Amino acid sequence: MARLIGFQKLTSTDEALNKWLSILQLQKHDETKIPIKDALNRVLSLDIIAKEDLPRFDKSAVDGYALLAEDTLEASQFKPAILKLTDSKKISSKQAIQVWTGNPIPINADSVVMIENTRKQKTQLKVYKQLPKGANVSKKGEDVKVGEIGIKSGTRLKPQHLALLSALGYKTIKVTRKPQIGVLATGNELIDSGESLSNGQIFESNRIMISGLLEELGANPIDLGIAKDNLENIAEKIRIALKNYNGLITTGGTSVGKLDLVPDAVNKIGSPGVIVHGMALRPAMPTGLAVLEGKPILILSGNPVAAIIGFEVFMRPLLIRMLGLDSEKRPTIHGILTRKASTRLGRKTYLRVRVFQKNTQYFVEPISARGSSIISSMTRANGFVIVPANREGVRKGEFVSVQLFGNVEKIRNDV
Amino acid sequence: MARLIGFQKLTSTDEALNKWLSILQLQKHDETKIPIKDALNRVLSLDIIAKEDLPRFDKSAVDGYALLAEDTLEASQFKPAILKLTDSKKISSKQAIQVWTGNPIPINADSVVMIENTRKQKTQLKVYKQLPKGANVSKKGEDVKVGEIGIKSGTRLKPQHLALLSALGYKTIKVTRKPQIGVLATGNELIDSGESLSNGQIFESNRIMISGLLEELGANPIDLGIAKDNLENIAEKIRIALKNYNGLITTGGTSVGKLDLVPDAVNKIGSPGVIVHGMALRPAMPTGLAVLEGKPILILSGNPVAAIIGFEVFMRPLLIRMLGLDSEKRPTIHGILTRKASTRLGRKTYLRVRVFQKNTQYFVEPISARGSSIISSMTRANGFVIVPANREGVRKGEFVSVQLFGNVEKIRNDV
Repeated sequence: MARLIGFQKLTSTDEALNKWLSILQLQKHDETKIPIKDALNRVLSLDIIAKEDLPRFDKSAVDGYALLAEDTLEASQFKPAILKLTDSKKISSKQAIQVWTGNPIPINADSVVMIENTRKQKTQLKVYKQLPKGANVSKKGEDVKVGEIGIKSGTRLKPQHLALLSALGYKTIKVTRKPQIGVLATGNELIDSGESLSNGQIFESNRIMISGLLEELGANPIDLGIAKDNLENIAEKIRIALKNYNGLITTGGTSVGKLDLVPDAVNKIGSPGVIVHGMALRPAMPTGLAVLEGKPILILSGNPVAAIIGFEVFMRPLLIRMLGLDSEKRPTIHGILTRKASTRLGRKTYLRVRVFQKNTQYFVEPISARGSSIISSMTRANGFVIVPANREGVRKGEFVSVQLFGNVEKIRNDV
Repeated sequence: MARLIGFQKLTSTDEALNKWLSILQLQKHDETKIPIKDALNRVLSLDIIAKEDLPRFDKSAVDGYALLAEDTLEASQFKPAILKLTDSKKISSKQAIQVWTGNPIPINADSVVMIENTRKQKTQLKVYKQLPKGANVSKKGEDVKVGEIGIKSGTRLKPQHLALLSALGYKTIKVTRKPQIGVLATGNELIDSGESLSNGQIFESNRIMISGLLEELGANPIDLGIAKDNLENIAEKIRIALKNYNGLITTGGTSVGKLDLVPDAVNKIGSPGVIVHGMALRPAMPTGLAVLEGKPILILSGNPVAAIIGFEVFMRPLLIRMLGLDSEKRPTIHGILTRKASTRLGRKTYLRVRVFQKNTQYFVEPISARGSSIISSMTRANGFVIVPANREGVRKGEFVSVQLFGNVEKIRNDV
């Protein structure tokens, strides 16, 4: 009966996460070789070391004329330097060669004058500006030098990284393989969206949300469907995930009551099983962390807001490690709280807030929502304020830090 | 010869963009019906109006006992209210029924007491707390009411939106079709990555970058390959794009010199053709905007940094309109510039910067890079500072606004 009167002990999220990660003893995930055209948002698993200088040769950064800087000494608007144009691939003293952006610098030339600062008259070029040596030349190796690390292992590849890989001559690269994570919903009351509802039934909505969160981070979600509130049924799905995938996330069946089935099913299969259950966290207190066969199982509440926050607190850092990323933070801004919000001493609280901007100042409005079942509180929010466990509420006007997960509106009228 | 001495007139980016958008007379793009499981990051093209209340019935927000709040009047730790447990689906005065989180509230009950605040003795329940009416009940329609807009048209769908759609019973939804945008590189010196280089050749690296930028925003890039610096060759590719896709982005062949071929090829095909060429913008001055057959053509510099900034300034707002998004801003933070940076009066300048955080303060370090060809200046940066055209440089210590495109590091040691 003890379990029926609530969690005996709540664990701090840091302690819980550290325990989970240490038991999991995660290695960086396997790597795989893919074409760079498929590599957007993938995580590089080896340092990219330049095999040649980039650029590979001195080249012109502008449209103009390559020349020797010393030949422009004291040239000005009133007293141009007069050079002779040549078509050869090298120049001598007092000569110039026309070049376009990106062209190699001709032999002996050391600078390029922009076309705007010259006047061409047949084979004569008037240069109206004195140039320093090296003017408008992109030097060999100026972008990346041979032997230098162009992109570090553990980088999430954005469009500019793909450009650099391409410029360095890469057609394929090694990236971390996407972790495959099973996603299972549990609950007798759940049916798939679009089917017809009987009394007391609701549409299951956590799997698609958890799958989206996994995809955003670069994991591959596997839909394991809905399990009835039945120990054997749930255990069977867990065994499928352990056999085929790199981890499992469940939703529902994790309260302290009669339907506390997911933790029981996990513990029935093997050990260590559930290592933490019950977090000093609001919402998402009933979150559980488990390990079977060295694989992570995240046991989330069936309440969608608790599920999203349990994912944020535990799955996000786990996946970042599995992917081999050093770290990856949400963008954080700092703003003024528009009204007070109460939180409970001893619980780290994830407040859902709507941040808006007025001039260069951010304002942070707590979303009113009573329970962790109100999914629209997450669709109206664009960030979290994380209130530490040693605080009892936050004050109106307080300067708070917000982790953004959505777009921030700019408001013109008065607050 | 006039064109050879530089752009005759530079247009402000706002004026150029407005002109382009007004000539294009963009309608919201076509819509398409897709399963919600494929809808992550797609843009909703119709308001989602709730056909039923969510939740559909009053339900318990906790594990506990449903009862009448009036029966707990003055109940306390020392003087519990004593109720009778029943198994029926409705209660009468002084009765209670056990419920689990998510269960419908039994008939006549108006509140739920948490299991922690009770003690069960056979068929008797002691309640140690006075409850307000409605305690721990999720009211019918509390999340979304029937007839209310659940999610607005023009919303980019994140995991929490998918959960709400699913909870509302949607299996498919209408989203904006992905705009198909051709991507063409031009230049005799360019070859595909991984092939063998001859003298003066370089690996083409803009197409993969532009394609990645398009994908990030939700467009569908179509690779049109590399065209030689040849008017007919380029015109042929433009005709393919006009015939098959919703727009075109080109890189290279846009300087004011001999190789000013893309604008010439566009103007050869039809009118209005190039409507702005030469921007009061740094880098990316040689960017051109064109319209043929009502479709947008963005003519970007071959320099990768200029190309990425030309895309940011012109393609991003265009795509946001094509997708039917109201707006979508990069996260913006405000921080202290660690050193001065010079910019030129009369040019809006996109400074590449690396932002880092120390305590709650952001510091903004300009990336040293001479030219717009230095792609590693973009891989080292995580944001832009946009310096307006009426400023000549920014000062060390100045408080600046930064548009983030990458991850911000937290630095512990002194700056």
